[in-house]
Amino acid sequence: MNLDAFATLLCDWCLEVAPGQQVLLVATTLAEPLIAALHRAILSRGAWPLLRLSPPGLAAEFYRMASDAQLDGFPPLELTEVEQIDAYLRIDAPDNTRALAGVDPATITRAARARQAIQEARLERRWCATIWPTPALAQQAAMSTEDYARFLAGALFLDQPDPVAAWDALSNRQAGLVERLQHAREVRIEAEGTDLRLSVEGRTWINSDGRRNMPSGEVFTGPLERSANGYVRFTLPSAPRGVEVEGVELTFVDGEVLAARAARGETYLQEALRTDAGARFLGELGIGTNTGIDRATGHILLDEKIAGTVHLALGRSYPETGGVNASALHWDLICDLRSGGRITLDGESLAIE
Amino acid sequence: MNLDAFATLLCDWCLEVAPGQQVLLVATTLAEPLIAALHRAILSRGAWPLLRLSPPGLAAEFYRMASDAQLDGFPPLELTEVEQIDAYLRIDAPDNTRALAGVDPATITRAARARQAIQEARLERRWCATIWPTPALAQQAAMSTEDYARFLAGALFLDQPDPVAAWDALSNRQAGLVERLQHAREVRIEAEGTDLRLSVEGRTWINSDGRRNMPSGEVFTGPLERSANGYVRFTLPSAPRGVEVEGVELTFVDGEVLAARAARGETYLQEALRTDAGARFLGELGIGTNTGIDRATGHILLDEKIAGTVHLALGRSYPETGGVNASALHWDLICDLRSGGRITLDGESLAIE
Repeated sequence: MNLDAFATLLCDWCLEVAPGQQVLLVATTLAEPLIAALHRAILSRGAWPLLRLSPPGLAAEFYRMASDAQLDGFPPLELTEVEQIDAYLRIDAPDNTRALAGVDPATITRAARARQAIQEARLERRWCATIWPTPALAQQAAMSTEDYARFLAGALFLDQPDPVAAWDALSNRQAGLVERLQHAREVRIEAEGTDLRLSVEGRTWINSDGRRNMPSGEVFTGPLERSANGYVRFTLPSAPRGVEVEGVELTFVDGEVLAARAARGETYLQEALRTDAGARFLGELGIGTNTGIDRATGHILLDEKIAGTVHLALGRSYPETGGVNASALHWDLICDLRSGGRITLDGESLAIE
Repeated sequence: MNLDAFATLLCDWCLEVAPGQQVLLVATTLAEPLIAALHRAILSRGAWPLLRLSPPGLAAEFYRMASDAQLDGFPPLELTEVEQIDAYLRIDAPDNTRALAGVDPATITRAARARQAIQEARLERRWCATIWPTPALAQQAAMSTEDYARFLAGALFLDQPDPVAAWDALSNRQAGLVERLQHAREVRIEAEGTDLRLSVEGRTWINSDGRRNMPSGEVFTGPLERSANGYVRFTLPSAPRGVEVEGVELTFVDGEVLAARAARGETYLQEALRTDAGARFLGELGIGTNTGIDRATGHILLDEKIAGTVHLALGRSYPETGGVNASALHWDLICDLRSGGRITLDGESLAIE
């Protein structure tokens, strides 16, 4: 992992760090090497790195120990700081991707609700989320830590001579794709076990080019809520909140899920669909374009970006797409088109790789 | 090291953590085990732990890299946060006690001056400084890390059944000592190479009982600025800013240093005396009382607390003592009285161990 190249990419492409800015860095202490590189990079741009490192595992401890007042509140300084910073970087660097397995999801939701003001203030800042290759993430991907670090470097384009230029090129390619998609009314997705039609007419496609998720590499929109008709088989596994779910098959009629089964994790699937009314409708359609990601590794931030895949999210839409589906759920499920699948726009085939 | 006992001591004796408070914890990542214990202890008291961990070595990097604007400024959020917190704990946990050896002291002074508003706001909060036994501190003490951790536990009274009660007992003993000292007009210090008289008439003695320095164990005041007469040999070594100074001998006439030499580090000594006008006068007289500290380990926070020693500081007084000596210097030098030395108050011997 070329740390200086990674830090440069984060500062110059993702956060556009400028002199005098206050840049908040949130990570576990496992990401120390990247934090040290970012400290140098941010200082050398005349800005202030503000470090928020935690020993891994403290989040689970908080949920286990918190009183009612702590679950329903937050330290006022946390809100003050997101209101005052210029940029925010979160580095996912867990020591155990299943650390929250024993925590009641209702507890997590409750605490998240209490902290909503912080989350909203944060989204108004320049923000980005990235990944540091810890042993736990490598294990989840069934790879050695060294191999995983190499894989991640490829996903970040750090193996290319000028990573910032590579992301700029991806951004331009995606802009062309968005231009094409923007004129489409109907999207049809076909693959073995899949034949689904969606309307995207009048919706906005977003060029996700690594400024907010690093790595990214997708274009996405919110399909019309009542438009999905047909069936889809999600061929890549998913691990929402640490529960492994595989072989999900959904049938849609006028936007709503009418039949649902899973080869593994069926109980979780059925519960997710019962979250609320919006959970049975689609909130997102995305197309992965990152050619540096060639396989599923169990991390949704990476899996949904694989070039040659599409993903659909049950639940909440992103408002910037024009999507209006509301739900507490946003669950991305991925369909691999790389062996014979295809996307057609108003009957015309779309080249996606 | 009993981490829970250490965290309890810091929460209940030093910081008096109460529900709803925001408690800022500043340390290097080497102190992770103590940070994790403090996270638990602070949460369980209904308060909010706010972690400020840095990889070791970033301070030196800042001095090396900072632009003029960075040396003469600070991130506004740092001031905001010390204004909003309820308590502040700094944990000294270096990976190298000589990390700043190559940094121009003028650079450090310049940055400290720029950050003075932060420092002042911090002193208005409940604050405490403590030590985590890193390999670097053990090395400086010429001990194995395990032995150093055991030594430090003794200095913190963590080897006693109830450390909080032990500090309370020390506080009461020191209160008696302060009561006695408060009536004294003249203090005379005698040992081999030392016979010094100081007036402390009208000055306030402070009971330093571990609330601000943990460990502590000293009582101190500011002697009358023009009162020191005689000579003193400081028998314990000192390492201000990483420079080793040993065998300092000073002769005072009417408060002022008229002759000064050192067996080692003489150049540093002469430069220190030339810092400014106040650097040639004493700002502090302290008496160590910590019976858990039986030897010098090169850390001034510990060395000056050794039971059976006195220390004198060249330079700045602490205003709460009534002392008025002003200087950019505050250099504590220690005289060991344990082999035949003594303190007399207005001609009457003081039992100090």
